[in-house]
Amino acid sequence: MDHESFRRYAHEFVDWIADYLENIERFPVMSRVKPGEIRSKLPASPPEEGEPMERIFADFKEILLPGMTHWQHPGWHAYFPANNSPESILGEMLMAGLGAQGMSWLTSPAATELEDLVMEWLRGILGLPAGLQGVIQDTASTATLAALISARERATDFESNESGLRRPLIAYASTETHSSIEKGVKIAGYGRQNLRVIPTDAAFAMRPDKLEEAIRADKAAGFQPAVAVATLGTTSSGAVDPLRPIGEICARHGVWLHVDAAYAGTAAVCPENRWILDGAEYLDSFVFNPHKWMLTNFDCSAYFIRDPGALIRTFEIHPEYLKTGADPYVKNYRDWGIPLGRRFRALKLWFVIRSYGTAGLRAFVREHLRLARLFRDWVAAEPGFEVPAPVHFGLVCFRWNGGRNEEESARINKALMDRLNASGEIGLTHTVLGGKFTLRLVIGSRLTEERHVRRAWELIRTTAAGIISA
Amino acid sequence: MDHESFRRYAHEFVDWIADYLENIERFPVMSRVKPGEIRSKLPASPPEEGEPMERIFADFKEILLPGMTHWQHPGWHAYFPANNSPESILGEMLMAGLGAQGMSWLTSPAATELEDLVMEWLRGILGLPAGLQGVIQDTASTATLAALISARERATDFESNESGLRRPLIAYASTETHSSIEKGVKIAGYGRQNLRVIPTDAAFAMRPDKLEEAIRADKAAGFQPAVAVATLGTTSSGAVDPLRPIGEICARHGVWLHVDAAYAGTAAVCPENRWILDGAEYLDSFVFNPHKWMLTNFDCSAYFIRDPGALIRTFEIHPEYLKTGADPYVKNYRDWGIPLGRRFRALKLWFVIRSYGTAGLRAFVREHLRLARLFRDWVAAEPGFEVPAPVHFGLVCFRWNGGRNEEESARINKALMDRLNASGEIGLTHTVLGGKFTLRLVIGSRLTEERHVRRAWELIRTTAAGIISA
Repeated sequence: MDHESFRRYAHEFVDWIADYLENIERFPVMSRVKPGEIRSKLPASPPEEGEPMERIFADFKEILLPGMTHWQHPGWHAYFPANNSPESILGEMLMAGLGAQGMSWLTSPAATELEDLVMEWLRGILGLPAGLQGVIQDTASTATLAALISARERATDFESNESGLRRPLIAYASTETHSSIEKGVKIAGYGRQNLRVIPTDAAFAMRPDKLEEAIRADKAAGFQPAVAVATLGTTSSGAVDPLRPIGEICARHGVWLHVDAAYAGTAAVCPENRWILDGAEYLDSFVFNPHKWMLTNFDCSAYFIRDPGALIRTFEIHPEYLKTGADPYVKNYRDWGIPLGRRFRALKLWFVIRSYGTAGLRAFVREHLRLARLFRDWVAAEPGFEVPAPVHFGLVCFRWNGGRNEEESARINKALMDRLNASGEIGLTHTVLGGKFTLRLVIGSRLTEERHVRRAWELIRTTAAGIISA
Repeated sequence: MDHESFRRYAHEFVDWIADYLENIERFPVMSRVKPGEIRSKLPASPPEEGEPMERIFADFKEILLPGMTHWQHPGWHAYFPANNSPESILGEMLMAGLGAQGMSWLTSPAATELEDLVMEWLRGILGLPAGLQGVIQDTASTATLAALISARERATDFESNESGLRRPLIAYASTETHSSIEKGVKIAGYGRQNLRVIPTDAAFAMRPDKLEEAIRADKAAGFQPAVAVATLGTTSSGAVDPLRPIGEICARHGVWLHVDAAYAGTAAVCPENRWILDGAEYLDSFVFNPHKWMLTNFDCSAYFIRDPGALIRTFEIHPEYLKTGADPYVKNYRDWGIPLGRRFRALKLWFVIRSYGTAGLRAFVREHLRLARLFRDWVAAEPGFEVPAPVHFGLVCFRWNGGRNEEESARINKALMDRLNASGEIGLTHTVLGGKFTLRLVIGSRLTEERHVRRAWELIRTTAAGIISA
């Protein structure tokens, strides 16, 4: 395709995207296709001769679009949000047009320097301790893996890097920790059995006394405690592990403290939410995802680290073909993560932060917290419903609890979720809290307004009533 | 920003991108900024109040753009190409607009099913063995890490996953292997000392006899050979490790064979280049990057695996909040790699393959190979220059060899590279081959035509003459 044709189609695509965002409420939140349905409509083999873009775009609209789940829908209350924003889409467009590669400073100096700057902005915007250094990763899973590997190397004095992992290293996280921790301990070679799962309190937050107990027991048994992961805003219920006592324990025992604030980190743009960071002076690494609640297109995960040397010493490689004259004077972010090649992700983040301003980001978060509390109060006041976990951020866990036994309640809650998702108006997901099937409703989409939350609650009440009376 | 403002700016950005691609030759290939120069022009703190997009876009053009290296320039001969294309940019635009998340089938069924389909298309387009299953990763570094981890688990019967890595596992790769292999063995816990570096022949390809020798020696010493990496198209010189004898050795010794064809894999779209895949029936995993030479925006790395079970068993996690009713019937690609969240990368690849057709992809590759051979012949015919490695694909290694000693030749070649890069007309990089400083010129950019290659050679000859006579 020549550049004039590109210009024509790209203008057409822009209008389609603007219309899509404008009219997104007309789509069902969750796709209604069955497994295999999309693929069955597409040719099994690629075309020999090129096809016109009209036809490809038509197939996109007619075949693929019905198979999409609309994450930007104002009725999106499932998982966590993965917000895009007009500003971020504009940033992605320029990134795609430039097609630049930020593996080394030299391969796109502005990409490296803007990343360096924007991460320092973010550190300040969240009120994280001075001195932490930042780098953009694709996801929190990858950032957490980097933390687990850095901790492994610190615990073995870089011996595993050099001669391989040979002794049991122990990792600690709560029962409510995200699955990426288990995945990371498997990948990094700790082994799943060496992840100690620490009990939580009634609010689903890690119990520091149990952490200390576990560390002491491991030391007594001759194992080496290497890393603990504290979560600010767990995926199940939004619980907040108490950073200060956990940090004190980690400091006392020489354990690397990684903080997973993938979802809730964004809340710290507001000073009134910074209680979650009390004790942050103890952390060794910290991750949160601007691609969740900070309006920046996936993927963009912000990883902060106290001692980048531990990261770089593990990841750096110096083949001749990557050496440049600038190396002694610059950051080469390829040594700060797993991939060599790097997208110019800082651009979209810079667009978002400048266009919103810090005041705009605070207002965005505050409105979601207001709506979440509103929803929580409605549910809590409704007979037959309960809110089984504190609502710190935009996630509200709730359940119908009017069954004769837990089995019946679980069945009704499950049916409620399925019908709500089938409605097309809202999308939500579930978890299990204290052994009980529980619904999760997250308020965090850019387009969600009070009217959407009111409608969601109306839908939940009437749908539940319909199921119960049936 | 509201959606009407987005529409307005996005149209403006489209015209900017089209103009940029149309006029890209007016930019110097390599950025001319000094370390710190870009950052010094940007405010140290984020704005409190949001700023208008006019100002942000103006800063992009005036401050950031001079700090960009123009990877899409027709004079881009450095590293390897990282081609975008109009089709792929269009795909990226839709991806950004949809803002969808493909971690599970349910979270965007069309994203999973299109990825499944497009990877099967790619397998066929390259002539890879039937039965290999594909998944898109961000980069070859990550895909190679996945291979090293799968190999580790197979070698330990999934014991390291379960209880941690405890014994020395050995990895094998040639002296010319990409640095991502060393990085991977460090991350996966093998340890750098357990990477055996196998000597190469005069064409810089791995010597199978030396591989077998090393495996036998390790077995005799009580170590466990786990994985060998064969490279098709090394980064330094484009060398091709002989897959068949290497595969036979791996099969004989129960060693996982991973094939790194990150750059040259695309060449296999042409049947006349498929000699590089002779012996592919032995491979356990294979990676190549459509984001290099197949016109698909970075990032998009195609990873194929014979037994996905080995990958999935290592990576899968089953927290309650990720369970869906569709799980028994679908692929959940989150278990096929490190990150949980996944972009809808299949879309841009589908746009490229359909718009070019397989015939268009073959023509694209063949023209680059024709130009590379043309350039190779010019250099080889020129007194004082040499081509020290076979030219299998678009990479031509060359050097001025008229110095009184190697030191003088290296100094001249280094000066030649610096002056060529300072010219703004072309960009190239270097390596060391057989201990000698060598220049690398890669022909693989979408916009590179014969006139550009002629001009590059003229510039090289006259610049070299200027340095030598000075």
